[in-house]
Amino acid sequence: MESLSKKAAGNLAAVREKKPLIHNITNYVVMNYTANALLAMGASPVMAHAHNEVEEMVSYAGALVLNIGTLTDDWIESMIIAGRKASEQKTPIILDPVGSGATTLRTDSAKKIIEQTNIAVIRGNASEILSLRHKDSKTKGVDSIHSVEDATETAKILAGELKTILAITGPVDLVTNGDSALRVSNGHPLMGYVTGTGCAATVTIGAFLAIDENPVSATATALAFFGLAGEVAGEKASAPGSFMIEMVNALYSISPEQLKDGCKIQEN
Amino acid sequence: MESLSKKAAGNLAAVREKKPLIHNITNYVVMNYTANALLAMGASPVMAHAHNEVEEMVSYAGALVLNIGTLTDDWIESMIIAGRKASEQKTPIILDPVGSGATTLRTDSAKKIIEQTNIAVIRGNASEILSLRHKDSKTKGVDSIHSVEDATETAKILAGELKTILAITGPVDLVTNGDSALRVSNGHPLMGYVTGTGCAATVTIGAFLAIDENPVSATATALAFFGLAGEVAGEKASAPGSFMIEMVNALYSISPEQLKDGCKIQEN
Amino acid sequence: MESLSKKAAGNLAAVREKKPLIHNITNYVVMNYTANALLAMGASPVMAHAHNEVEEMVSYAGALVLNIGTLTDDWIESMIIAGRKASEQKTPIILDPVGSGATTLRTDSAKKIIEQTNIAVIRGNASEILSLRHKDSKTKGVDSIHSVEDATETAKILAGELKTILAITGPVDLVTNGDSALRVSNGHPLMGYVTGTGCAATVTIGAFLAIDENPVSATATALAFFGLAGEVAGEKASAPGSFMIEMVNALYSISPEQLKDGCKIQEN
Repeated sequence: MESLSKKAAGNLAAVREKKPLIHNITNYVVMNYTANALLAMGASPVMAHAHNEVEEMVSYAGALVLNIGTLTDDWIESMIIAGRKASEQKTPIILDPVGSGATTLRTDSAKKIIEQTNIAVIRGNASEILSLRHKDSKTKGVDSIHSVEDATETAKILAGELKTILAITGPVDLVTNGDSALRVSNGHPLMGYVTGTGCAATVTIGAFLAIDENPVSATATALAFFGLAGEVAGEKASAPGSFMIEMVNALYSISPEQLKDGCKIQEN
Repeated sequence: MESLSKKAAGNLAAVREKKPLIHNITNYVVMNYTANALLAMGASPVMAHAHNEVEEMVSYAGALVLNIGTLTDDWIESMIIAGRKASEQKTPIILDPVGSGATTLRTDSAKKIIEQTNIAVIRGNASEILSLRHKDSKTKGVDSIHSVEDATETAKILAGELKTILAITGPVDLVTNGDSALRVSNGHPLMGYVTGTGCAATVTIGAFLAIDENPVSATATALAFFGLAGEVAGEKASAPGSFMIEMVNALYSISPEQLKDGCKIQEN
Repeated sequence: MESLSKKAAGNLAAVREKKPLIHNITNYVVMNYTANALLAMGASPVMAHAHNEVEEMVSYAGALVLNIGTLTDDWIESMIIAGRKASEQKTPIILDPVGSGATTLRTDSAKKIIEQTNIAVIRGNASEILSLRHKDSKTKGVDSIHSVEDATETAKILAGELKTILAITGPVDLVTNGDSALRVSNGHPLMGYVTGTGCAATVTIGAFLAIDENPVSATATALAFFGLAGEVAGEKASAPGSFMIEMVNALYSISPEQLKDGCKIQEN
């Protein structure tokens, strides 16, 4: 899709030029890796979670990343305080519902954040995203999803019900705002062997949301960029240790022109 | 030891096939590295510590890793809640008593966890393990340990008193259940220059405990595998930054056949 | 400066020989990287923050590193408890006021730590350091700083007012105790693309403070060593992922002789 390829290149150039501040309230496991991913691509990460600091910090941010990976009630409260402030000032928020569906605390916390703040984008894998359905959702259950068409239709309905953009990542990523859907097929199998790859995709969307007013194109182009970084890394590394380092290198080294040429986004 | 070499190969293959979920309640410093170690070897790591989540999470796990590295009373409580649940459902628990003996809080917390949960294996260095002795222990003090024989005898007595398997790691690792003892001599000197190497050895034992019902062979073969990863990494890297990355590569790349050939376990 | 080059070489050799224990109460993002930096250079890192453990832990330490990067009131309290104990026993303390000036919590917390403990060195960038001024400071505001001379004069006055050594890092680092000033020009531009580079510079100063009784020479030689590691890394890596690994390698590999030759410290 020619126009989205150009958009991707422009967005990457804008991140590097504007160096948006991305405020992260995230899990302990990935803090270092996602901070390095943001720095490498040209953004400015900050991690801050104190109840008495997050409103002030988010007021300076271009986007807010909420990630429930090693959550406690106390951290969820931080996320909601920051999320409400971000919602008030119309700062885009991206939620990564890590492990939603696996435990009650995670599912309930993700839903609570969605209810109490204005989330622009939710990024997760299919099971995490499907766990966010309301009781009275009109989506079909996972057992009724037999094809790409079913999955897309389900995602569209759920995005409409949650009033947000959904980014369901996997071998092919799906991005939908409820009306239309885009598919992003950049990526590499080794991405599944590095912890925090999904979380790093999320912060990349955060950086692109900070400089692209259209959250659909921001999300799709961010995923194409991140997936292309995986492809570039996969050409240099054949095992996950080296691969995770080459991912960081690629986020720094990929040029806007290279992204325009390598971007694999198509309308669904 | 031919049979343990074959067992090691079979265990590694089983980890990669079954991808056991390993629940970690561990220290902030090593969370990322140990998650990446588990992913690289083929297991599925999850980090979760909320009091109101750990029982549910551990119910899905094949093993529970408890590591007191950056402990507080609150985190020790999480470990005990999770550990009791794991004990009930007979999920193997491995304890890493990081720094036990160095401060009262660490020694007392390690002992408390041992008393209140059913620990399958404790892995630590010699001073950490010796700090776990009861007041009325029949082991000789550290000043009376003058030889490998003394050390082995002390470890056996202590394992019997603590009713657990002890894995005392160092240039040569000692594994004992109180009755017999195995020595594992895989490893590399650069392992001492990377933070979380001991903790990563612990999670490797966790992964092997999840697929091998015999905790002695699980522990010894896990240490042989982890030590061999150090040897492979040491052939490629001569300084700790590259070495820690090559360790992760090796955990992914070493084949069961390669482990069978490289495994250095002997009966004591 | 011949004598400081020799001092740098001697300090590096002393860190490797004495392996000082460095107690860190620091932020979640950089714990792993700074622990690895300390291990690579030859020091012994420990991270411990429990209120009921820090006094005992710091009593064994050669230096205490306080870093407010992901602070909460609870962690600041840990820092003050540890800092008071360190002050009593005259263990050198180095403060890294991450983000001071960005939020009220950070600025107030940094000032509180300075007031309630005896800080030997504060390391930060110019805006962090300037945020620490008292209301009645005689320093000129940032808008009045137009030259290297102005900056040096301001730093000297502020160091005198805060009764500590200031290490203001950037393309060229400035170290002053209020009376005299040194400039350190080792470093590499990619250091700005890796999270925790500043924090790792801070722990390097911590390690050198533990073995050099003169905190001015400890600070300047530590920054020269750390900057030289950046230069060596920059010869091997051209993107931040590989660069951060090569930094760790360099901290391990640089010899005292190499540091003597590469050290760029000059009196101001």
